[in-house]
Amino acid sequence: MTNVRSTVELLKSFDDFMLAVDWKKSPLSLYVPVEYILSLGGKRIRPLAIIFLTELLEGPKEGAMHAAYGLELFHNFSLIHDDIMDQAERRRSRDTVHKKFGINPAILSGDVMMIESMRFLRLAEQLSGKIGLQDLFIKTAREVCEGQALDMEFEKKSDISYAEYVEMIRLKTAVLLAFGFEVAALLSSREDLAVAFYNIGIFTGLAFQLEDDYLDFYATEMSFGKIKAGDILQAKKSALVLELMEQFDATQRNDFASWYQDVNKPEIRITVMEDYFKQYGIHDKLKDRITLYQNKVYDLIEGLHLTATQKLNLKDFILGIFSRKF
Amino acid sequence: MTNVRSTVELLKSFDDFMLAVDWKKSPLSLYVPVEYILSLGGKRIRPLAIIFLTELLEGPKEGAMHAAYGLELFHNFSLIHDDIMDQAERRRSRDTVHKKFGINPAILSGDVMMIESMRFLRLAEQLSGKIGLQDLFIKTAREVCEGQALDMEFEKKSDISYAEYVEMIRLKTAVLLAFGFEVAALLSSREDLAVAFYNIGIFTGLAFQLEDDYLDFYATEMSFGKIKAGDILQAKKSALVLELMEQFDATQRNDFASWYQDVNKPEIRITVMEDYFKQYGIHDKLKDRITLYQNKVYDLIEGLHLTATQKLNLKDFILGIFSRKF
Repeated sequence: MTNVRSTVELLKSFDDFMLAVDWKKSPLSLYVPVEYILSLGGKRIRPLAIIFLTELLEGPKEGAMHAAYGLELFHNFSLIHDDIMDQAERRRSRDTVHKKFGINPAILSGDVMMIESMRFLRLAEQLSGKIGLQDLFIKTAREVCEGQALDMEFEKKSDISYAEYVEMIRLKTAVLLAFGFEVAALLSSREDLAVAFYNIGIFTGLAFQLEDDYLDFYATEMSFGKIKAGDILQAKKSALVLELMEQFDATQRNDFASWYQDVNKPEIRITVMEDYFKQYGIHDKLKDRITLYQNKVYDLIEGLHLTATQKLNLKDFILGIFSRKF
Repeated sequence: MTNVRSTVELLKSFDDFMLAVDWKKSPLSLYVPVEYILSLGGKRIRPLAIIFLTELLEGPKEGAMHAAYGLELFHNFSLIHDDIMDQAERRRSRDTVHKKFGINPAILSGDVMMIESMRFLRLAEQLSGKIGLQDLFIKTAREVCEGQALDMEFEKKSDISYAEYVEMIRLKTAVLLAFGFEVAALLSSREDLAVAFYNIGIFTGLAFQLEDDYLDFYATEMSFGKIKAGDILQAKKSALVLELMEQFDATQRNDFASWYQDVNKPEIRITVMEDYFKQYGIHDKLKDRITLYQNKVYDLIEGLHLTATQKLNLKDFILGIFSRKF
């Protein structure tokens, strides 16, 4: 098993699949926003994970494609609804769905995308004969809602622990990637790999998300559409900030939290935070946490019952995610 | 088969089932609104239809209960999201979910209820071994979104035909009841009844919804929580109004539509409409349409391969819906 197609080829075949899906045209207010958000692109890491991993395990291509599409639909549904909740106006350098079409069509188009995501997971089940994919999907979908709810709750709370934050990003982000990993194992009749694949997905997702928080402040070159230190500017409690707060005692935490929330000059917030991060070695501390997750991923891969080539390909794929190649 | 339990007993057993479902408590912002809307009550016609009809056909009780609960969850999800879109503040004489908890929790709690509705349909499938229930549910769920989208589109359009309106209420309301009817047939291994049951559900739903529009203006005694001629007060294009517009030629329709939308004294709107309705015999015309659907239901029941007692029980149940007994 060395002939895994390149991720570029796989993404191309996924794009072709997406374009071939025939969405209804009417009612316009329901389906135009769907076409819009799907046309905005994105990294497609989640569907790519399913397609790549199923190919790696020599599983069925058709089932993988349908599951991948369902997963991407769900992800985009969650983006639409999250953007409403966050009152975000821009996504992928374009207007968000609710900004462009209004809140009502955005709610409803999100709803129908979620319903359709269920249908594609169902099709993946039926095509592959692997009953159980959808139960896993439903469980995951619920967790994503829980993650988003926690995220919203955290915005209103001054005092969150780093552990709570990790649990939030596990639910909001990592479980969806982990679902993709596990589905690939199940589709490929490698039930023996299911748990390990799921965990690889979780740790990959956590490392990726924490790195996102890290890069927000420490990236040497910002990726298109993102603002340097955007989290700090918006007084977000990112992993860096929570890592810092872990270093404080209760009184310090309280004082810091009110200052962080209330300081009215964002530039001052950035300067002070930079000093804090230096003083407490936050850069290294967060980097260590990320490395820990990455190492867990590599250890898990080592322990898999796969050929050496498969392991190599898998590691290479994960590295691609970590290095933000896709 | 004469020992179908009374609808009161059936509703009681459904209530018991609902109370026994163990929703997670955390995150609070996600699950408290779910408990809230489910506690508001409601007629529970849709779940009752599944439970009653499955019992009538001697199908499996457990499967019916799970499908009924899933259907009721979906209905309540749609109420939460529709209330946001309609900016409705009251439902069942209480605050709507978004009014009480905010729009963001309302969006997200609706989402998780929809996901859970899928899970319960899945459980119904697994308990009964009747694969296919969920495909039908997914198709129906999508249609409900389409109905809601049409409803929102119609609010902005001055000229809608009566036929377009019926198609909208078919999607927004009737298909969910029809789903309940068909599911009862499928659960009970009476695939031969599936299509007829579905159609009975559609015509029952249409008759019920048109009657709702009729009663808004012509009810002798208003049901609790509703305002007499509320549709006209809010310049809604209800079945009565669209029936009237059917009587006009193009110019009259245009003139009428602008007047109806723009007249700034709602009391005047009501007085004028009352005259119009009298002049064009709208009361009888709409009543005839409703009777037509009701007769279709009775004809369909007559043609079913059921015992005379079953037919009688079924007719009695439908009459209960039409007479708003439940």
